[in-house]
Amino acid sequence: MITLSSDFGSPYPAAMKGVILQETDARLVDITHDFPRQDVRTAAFWLREVLPYFPPAVHLVVVDPGVGTDRRAIVLTAGDHVLVGPDNGVLVPAARALARRAGSDGDLTVYEIPVSAPESTTFHGRDVFAPAAAAVHDTPPTALDYPALTEFVNLEFPTPTVDGDVIHGEVLVVDDFGNAITNVPGDRLRDRLDEDREVEVGGERTPVRETYAAVDPGERVVTVGSHGNVELAVNRGRGDDAFGVTPGSEVVLESITD
Amino acid sequence: MITLSSDFGSPYPAAMKGVILQETDARLVDITHDFPRQDVRTAAFWLREVLPYFPPAVHLVVVDPGVGTDRRAIVLTAGDHVLVGPDNGVLVPAARALARRAGSDGDLTVYEIPVSAPESTTFHGRDVFAPAAAAVHDTPPTALDYPALTEFVNLEFPTPTVDGDVIHGEVLVVDDFGNAITNVPGDRLRDRLDEDREVEVGGERTPVRETYAAVDPGERVVTVGSHGNVELAVNRGRGDDAFGVTPGSEVVLESITD
Amino acid sequence: MITLSSDFGSPYPAAMKGVILQETDARLVDITHDFPRQDVRTAAFWLREVLPYFPPAVHLVVVDPGVGTDRRAIVLTAGDHVLVGPDNGVLVPAARALARRAGSDGDLTVYEIPVSAPESTTFHGRDVFAPAAAAVHDTPPTALDYPALTEFVNLEFPTPTVDGDVIHGEVLVVDDFGNAITNVPGDRLRDRLDEDREVEVGGERTPVRETYAAVDPGERVVTVGSHGNVELAVNRGRGDDAFGVTPGSEVVLESITD
Repeated sequence: MITLSSDFGSPYPAAMKGVILQETDARLVDITHDFPRQDVRTAAFWLREVLPYFPPAVHLVVVDPGVGTDRRAIVLTAGDHVLVGPDNGVLVPAARALARRAGSDGDLTVYEIPVSAPESTTFHGRDVFAPAAAAVHDTPPTALDYPALTEFVNLEFPTPTVDGDVIHGEVLVVDDFGNAITNVPGDRLRDRLDEDREVEVGGERTPVRETYAAVDPGERVVTVGSHGNVELAVNRGRGDDAFGVTPGSEVVLESITD
Repeated sequence: MITLSSDFGSPYPAAMKGVILQETDARLVDITHDFPRQDVRTAAFWLREVLPYFPPAVHLVVVDPGVGTDRRAIVLTAGDHVLVGPDNGVLVPAARALARRAGSDGDLTVYEIPVSAPESTTFHGRDVFAPAAAAVHDTPPTALDYPALTEFVNLEFPTPTVDGDVIHGEVLVVDDFGNAITNVPGDRLRDRLDEDREVEVGGERTPVRETYAAVDPGERVVTVGSHGNVELAVNRGRGDDAFGVTPGSEVVLESITD
Repeated sequence: MITLSSDFGSPYPAAMKGVILQETDARLVDITHDFPRQDVRTAAFWLREVLPYFPPAVHLVVVDPGVGTDRRAIVLTAGDHVLVGPDNGVLVPAARALARRAGSDGDLTVYEIPVSAPESTTFHGRDVFAPAAAAVHDTPPTALDYPALTEFVNLEFPTPTVDGDVIHGEVLVVDDFGNAITNVPGDRLRDRLDEDREVEVGGERTPVRETYAAVDPGERVVTVGSHGNVELAVNRGRGDDAFGVTPGSEVVLESITD
């Protein structure tokens, strides 16, 4: 099985599929090709959330603003999963999550994909990464004699800080529904704030609920999303607009105890 | 074969696929993940139009504004087809159409999916419905000991009323092309209006034609769409804008006999 | 293997898949269903770029503004590939490219799909082309007794003209990133202009580079795209806006020699 993820929209991903299907009859599964353009960080977040739900697979990821420069093309192995893409951090959070699922401490093994005179300087998804994904699908990178690397570009998401009853977090991404997903772990909300059933967000009281539909349509709600993090949402509306946040916005959550 | 339909956009549907592929190697076919957000009625319409073209399959449908509330999760069987989704009516018109194709009178057998402590309160597509779709793909719901239900949430589309030469109908949905699809059966248009080759729509004479391209680009036309219903369209343009209608708009069609 | 391409958006393509899967268990691969509506020329361009990367397959293409008129439904064979769609030119550039890859001179064999009383007059993708794609997937058109044609609607892209140091080309399409893809072959840019590393586009000096990221974000650049043609782009921005061009715009490239 090979999964495919990119910011290519259409129809470029189809060329990657054609290249792969020339070499292997692996099952192909699209994760998405609608990641925000060249937004390595948002892609890295979603891949961390989605890829651990898959059985062992090769995951081809191309969000690659540095295509054609000297950034490296890499393969990461994590448990029974293999990730293929540019060395810009996009693969790292998902690879660490997959490695932890496999029982390791999150250490990753990294190989460089040898690149020699690709057909294009602007579409390495087709000319470099798709052939590599097809190659590692059947043959492990060690048997392919891919050189091992000791360094790679890391990517980590910020962790929230806690100051008494106040948590300082950050919006990591906004999903297609407008839900603003923060870096605040959901158990923190449950542990500290559950009894109040209200929290101050940016100084304003907001109900804390198990799900969107627990408040009236159009009402703001703080909940724990399917990724396990605190989410700022509006039932049947857009949380990002209502709370006035975008990715990177600071979020201050304050327990209400009076 | 398992088909997948939702209003999730991307990348959430990929998590459902991962969960399914952990359990079964069934073929997966996307119907769409771009249903209008939380619009149970529009999704129900399209599923009724599309699913009957499929060979026997499990159809996973997640348009679920009530996720996390006490709405039930259900399985409907209709002929050789099995539908899995929330008990909000979204499955019903398609299930009845599939049952009629199978020669039954449209009666449906319904089971409740046992739900116990799903991983999330907001993403039952991944945590409840995808596992159920994988389970019923190989094992019928009776063998899974899913409890049978005698009641479920129904959903029916309104039928037009006829008053002499005048038909009062309604726009059910507008497709991506802007074609406004009504609830008026096409044979009614053909039977009553064919000789005139013109009909009054909202009081204005409009040509009735077999296809869009039978009028000049930009011209309004009344036709019978691929779903068999009367459609308000514009050749190479948007019918909804030209006729000033949206889903739910009343449509008055009047035969012209002078 | 059957690939599917259309301008249908969703959920219409799913009905085509259902029809095909009633007849064959062929692998299905989506090229795109987001071609610009009824834009035969843009679809023809992208199919020419993408289909040659595929292994032998049946390619179902439905961009069909003339649906329901007397335009013919055809099958084109090109090497080991078979193309199915309307006789409006949309298949032709891809078919010629596939035939050339197969070592022929680009000559095509064309058959007419017999059409008798399709279920609809507006959705031949489902009622005419999908059944034909399923049929020719297992059985060659000759064995199906499809009548051979000696004529079909041609479609060719304009070639640029060269006048001394000046090349007069045209924007063929704009991709999802905003890159304006011209009809000027990339080798012409490389041969004539490489030493200057700058070219006048519409009278303004613009750097010529191997890839987008070789200029600063927001800067204009002329490059050779993955299709081999000269492209007007902006690093991390939209070339079409910056250069003020749309498909069909004239592009004047002038070598700078002072």
